[in-house]
Amino acid sequence: MSGSIEFEQQASVAQVTISHSPRFNAMSRTMWRALRSIFESIQNSTDVRCVVIKGDKANFCSGGDISEYTDFRFQESSLRDFHENDVWGALRAMLDCDVPIVAQIEGNCMGAGVEIASCCDIRLSSLSAKFGAPIAKLGFPMAPREAALVAREAGLVTARRMLLEAAVFSATDMKEAGFLSRVLADDQLRTEAQATALRISALAPQAARLNKQALRALLSPVLPVDHHGDETTYAYAESAEHREGIQAFLEKRKPVF
Amino acid sequence: MSGSIEFEQQASVAQVTISHSPRFNAMSRTMWRALRSIFESIQNSTDVRCVVIKGDKANFCSGGDISEYTDFRFQESSLRDFHENDVWGALRAMLDCDVPIVAQIEGNCMGAGVEIASCCDIRLSSLSAKFGAPIAKLGFPMAPREAALVAREAGLVTARRMLLEAAVFSATDMKEAGFLSRVLADDQLRTEAQATALRISALAPQAARLNKQALRALLSPVLPVDHHGDETTYAYAESAEHREGIQAFLEKRKPVF
Amino acid sequence: MSGSIEFEQQASVAQVTISHSPRFNAMSRTMWRALRSIFESIQNSTDVRCVVIKGDKANFCSGGDISEYTDFRFQESSLRDFHENDVWGALRAMLDCDVPIVAQIEGNCMGAGVEIASCCDIRLSSLSAKFGAPIAKLGFPMAPREAALVAREAGLVTARRMLLEAAVFSATDMKEAGFLSRVLADDQLRTEAQATALRISALAPQAARLNKQALRALLSPVLPVDHHGDETTYAYAESAEHREGIQAFLEKRKPVF
Repeated sequence: MSGSIEFEQQASVAQVTISHSPRFNAMSRTMWRALRSIFESIQNSTDVRCVVIKGDKANFCSGGDISEYTDFRFQESSLRDFHENDVWGALRAMLDCDVPIVAQIEGNCMGAGVEIASCCDIRLSSLSAKFGAPIAKLGFPMAPREAALVAREAGLVTARRMLLEAAVFSATDMKEAGFLSRVLADDQLRTEAQATALRISALAPQAARLNKQALRALLSPVLPVDHHGDETTYAYAESAEHREGIQAFLEKRKPVF
Repeated sequence: MSGSIEFEQQASVAQVTISHSPRFNAMSRTMWRALRSIFESIQNSTDVRCVVIKGDKANFCSGGDISEYTDFRFQESSLRDFHENDVWGALRAMLDCDVPIVAQIEGNCMGAGVEIASCCDIRLSSLSAKFGAPIAKLGFPMAPREAALVAREAGLVTARRMLLEAAVFSATDMKEAGFLSRVLADDQLRTEAQATALRISALAPQAARLNKQALRALLSPVLPVDHHGDETTYAYAESAEHREGIQAFLEKRKPVF
Repeated sequence: MSGSIEFEQQASVAQVTISHSPRFNAMSRTMWRALRSIFESIQNSTDVRCVVIKGDKANFCSGGDISEYTDFRFQESSLRDFHENDVWGALRAMLDCDVPIVAQIEGNCMGAGVEIASCCDIRLSSLSAKFGAPIAKLGFPMAPREAALVAREAGLVTARRMLLEAAVFSATDMKEAGFLSRVLADDQLRTEAQATALRISALAPQAARLNKQALRALLSPVLPVDHHGDETTYAYAESAEHREGIQAFLEKRKPVF
């Protein structure tokens, strides 16, 4: 079992669920591909007016599925394929979706979770959720486009603390940083996310699509989606530092860099 | 009567007043043209060192004058003319003005009001003011350059809630979002706005102009003012959704989209 | 004596100290050149994993060394040389440095101090520190690239108040503005800055370098470092306003603009 992305439609609201509960909804490669295909379907649908994306059970998404990493991360070409096709393919399908997307965030929202949330228009979080991308502990950087996306949405100061300090943030921190639209009491989150989706789906749907298109066009200089680094971007794949971080994690020990 | 923009100069401070009091200072086409011409004069003046822009009576500006909308909104060419010439002509004259502009905001600051405030350098608001652009209830999007301007000044997260959720924000929310420079007690706003203008006009005027020119040049990639969508941008003019939103408003009923 | 920049390395942490204590660590031309050369060395070093930059004694940096200004500011070519070579040479060396930089800010962080802090990745401040760039009182603007850098890091709304209103901000204001990473009790600042540097230097160093490179590449449209104004940028050098501001400061009187 490597997890799944569930899709369900209730009236004009699509419900997308990140589901991989033994791993706190960590994203496997299968899940990235499913996420892309679901958002491509939503974009082509004529009767979806709002999407809610959430995690199964008590977490949004705890990151990437590290148990798969030794299969492909230590070789440059397969690492590039993972980031540019699997991950960015899914994130780009979300960014290219003209239908408003509401993130319903609780529990862990780490790494891949922050990236997925960064593609949403409205971000609602429970008070107890936690945010970060502590991959500097795993010995590798965020891919350039993913880092640009997170920096754009969470702000430079917060993105730098996430990446350079491996800092973890509370929902209150992330509201102050301008990343979250609203922070709710834990027991209000689900109700309020659904109410927000219903409110959005009662508004003019063509206007929403046109607004999303306008903002996307004008953001493109800030997030040059065609910039995916250069031929050296994934050259770190075979480095000792990269292996050490992931091996240490899998062996449940502290890495030595 | 379709409102007016009043201009008055006291020593080196220009006072610009948005005045259309039966409609809470909603902007008519006449007013957009007058706003442009006033800011073009200010830019050419040699003795204005600061501008204060405010609304007549207890509101800043409640939006566009919807009573005029059936005259021109439902035809693509007249809609484009309105946005690109009347509205953007005025906003661009404000953005191109090298003299520091202080917004003195109270009451409603909605739609056009948020756009006008977005062209100001220093934004002071009373605690009870309200901000938003709930045009998704009227069945139409914000024009691309106007959306880019608001997103740049209010931040993406707030702009998305305004446009996609038709959310209305308090002054405290807008201070947190980074849009407002300062929030003041209602009875302190006018005094403090005038004091700020006097403080600015005692500082070096050439330095202010050069600082505004430098920031404008460097912001141009983020607000590509020559990007005004493409030939499809205003094709929504004749859509049923657009008519329904505006008709429902004029008939004082809830629109059905 | 025109001040110095001190460098010291403890294990993998570099300590850089801005030192010009009779002038509260104001930056002289000698100090700008030394700052550049130290950061160029750090960039070429293979064993520095984190830099802490701080001021000698109780201030970070109070601005430029105004006592030198009459030597070069009133002539266009020498003014350009100062901004484009001395100041930008140093700031660019900091921005181009791939090693994470922690700013340890206390006391005055004004003008040049804000610019130096704007080149740091993690900004820690004591609660009592003060921030601003009140050069409009001195009769001159911020150079275009320096203004762009400060606006990017402190936000437009705060940068405009600094430049157009000569406003001074508390650490709490600058945390809210998104400029500061953390605000600490005055007696905790030094300990926490060093602890942060140690935490960063235990994380993967290659990942940090790659993350900094990615963020830098993607920020370049927002901070076009090759944009240094045009041939008129420094034409204000010989203006009466410029002379008046600096002369008044040196004569300890209020300027009349």
